[in-house]
Amino acid sequence: MLPYHYKHHVRVRYAETDKMGVCWHGNYLLYLEEARGEALRATGHGSYADMEAAGVMTPIVKINLNYHHSAFYDDLLTIHVYVEEPVRSKIKFRYEVVNEAGEAILDGITELAFITADTHQPCRPPLALRTFFK
Amino acid sequence: MLPYHYKHHVRVRYAETDKMGVCWHGNYLLYLEEARGEALRATGHGSYADMEAAGVMTPIVKINLNYHHSAFYDDLLTIHVYVEEPVRSKIKFRYEVVNEAGEAILDGITELAFITADTHQPCRPPLALRTFFK
Amino acid sequence: MLPYHYKHHVRVRYAETDKMGVCWHGNYLLYLEEARGEALRATGHGSYADMEAAGVMTPIVKINLNYHHSAFYDDLLTIHVYVEEPVRSKIKFRYEVVNEAGEAILDGITELAFITADTHQPCRPPLALRTFFK
Amino acid sequence: MLPYHYKHHVRVRYAETDKMGVCWHGNYLLYLEEARGEALRATGHGSYADMEAAGVMTPIVKINLNYHHSAFYDDLLTIHVYVEEPVRSKIKFRYEVVNEAGEAILDGITELAFITADTHQPCRPPLALRTFFK
Repeated sequence: MLPYHYKHHVRVRYAETDKMGVCWHGNYLLYLEEARGEALRATGHGSYADMEAAGVMTPIVKINLNYHHSAFYDDLLTIHVYVEEPVRSKIKFRYEVVNEAGEAILDGITELAFITADTHQPCRPPLALRTFFK
Repeated sequence: MLPYHYKHHVRVRYAETDKMGVCWHGNYLLYLEEARGEALRATGHGSYADMEAAGVMTPIVKINLNYHHSAFYDDLLTIHVYVEEPVRSKIKFRYEVVNEAGEAILDGITELAFITADTHQPCRPPLALRTFFK
Repeated sequence: MLPYHYKHHVRVRYAETDKMGVCWHGNYLLYLEEARGEALRATGHGSYADMEAAGVMTPIVKINLNYHHSAFYDDLLTIHVYVEEPVRSKIKFRYEVVNEAGEAILDGITELAFITADTHQPCRPPLALRTFFK
Repeated sequence: MLPYHYKHHVRVRYAETDKMGVCWHGNYLLYLEEARGEALRATGHGSYADMEAAGVMTPIVKINLNYHHSAFYDDLLTIHVYVEEPVRSKIKFRYEVVNEAGEAILDGITELAFITADTHQPCRPPLALRTFFK
């Protein structure tokens, strides 16, 4: 199956800028995480909160990001999220962040592991997610 | 007993500045929290982590802060913490934050409640803390 | 004139929770700031970004917050903002934050000063804002 | 010249944890940034603040991080920073983060660009830094 594509919008908060006058580089991880959450919700197979309530957590295991242009306070950014089919106990998300002028701000990937909330051992993705990708 | 006085130092991080070029106002709550933690550790009656491990949590119930001067990236701030004796299930901390030139940056108070980690009901302060104030 | 009332919505991000499992107390300042910005935009008299571009900045001078209930990951919060008419070089905002069940999460005020971006001296509120309150 | 090695220590703040009970993945970027700053200061060739004051800024252009173990509230982490000699208008930092038990928490690299503060054009590294690597 092709990666599932979802589009999320986020506005850069004042507190997320730094003294260089731009969005501080680490804050994009807030946006990507929020976009992942909304992408999951939009599948109609439950939210990330539901998944945790069902005993599965997804710590980050890898992050690769490339920064192209700065984003500024009050910029309305579009986060394109591409969710790949889970492979065993891992799942990869690709991202492209663009501003309203269509300029590339950032692209990259994050890889997450599925672990059980109680024992923190690797586990299969939740059924809902496996079903979604069938 | 007089309030217990503790002095903590913190350096303003780049990410903690905003586009105004100063430490973003909300980030002082990071510094005050860190200062509270170090003040507790310095009592020799266990750390805040120990307290949580023993089943007591301390959510914030009130914050009053007055901002006097801005702090800047890389400023080394001194946080004076004054810990008052707990009253029933609450404890109050007063703060004065000054920079290296001795200028007043911020003062204020936070009030925290003691609750049990399991039921989230108000509870007495941990014995160690009550002992410390005797 | 009565205070101007604006309603803003914000969803609690995963990163904004702490190990107590709730929204970390300092993160409400992110929400209040975002709500102020949207309240200003909604007046139709320009955004906060416009105001800064016109040479006026508004550092926080006072914060008083009372915390009533915790908010949790993925909660959709409503921020009621009440903007009072500026008095000389200051402006006060009152807030009430409620969750989807209508429970009071937080209330309080922030007071901001108008200063010039170049000399950082107190100044009158921008004309657009003064006009809005007439 | 070999990469310059610097060791920095940082304690995980309460606010930096998330509801999974661990240090939120994005907060490591705070630690790495702080470690870079202290590494520069320790060269004796001026601080990062000095560099900015002299008209050079260093936005992040690339981040690659691998997460191995979680860090927890109050953990005292050691950040090993390896600063490589700048190549044209870029500089690479490698990192290894370990906890007090010596467990690997995270490793990775960040790449930064040198740009002028006024025109935001790529520029040579500051003389002090070039000198340091000779």
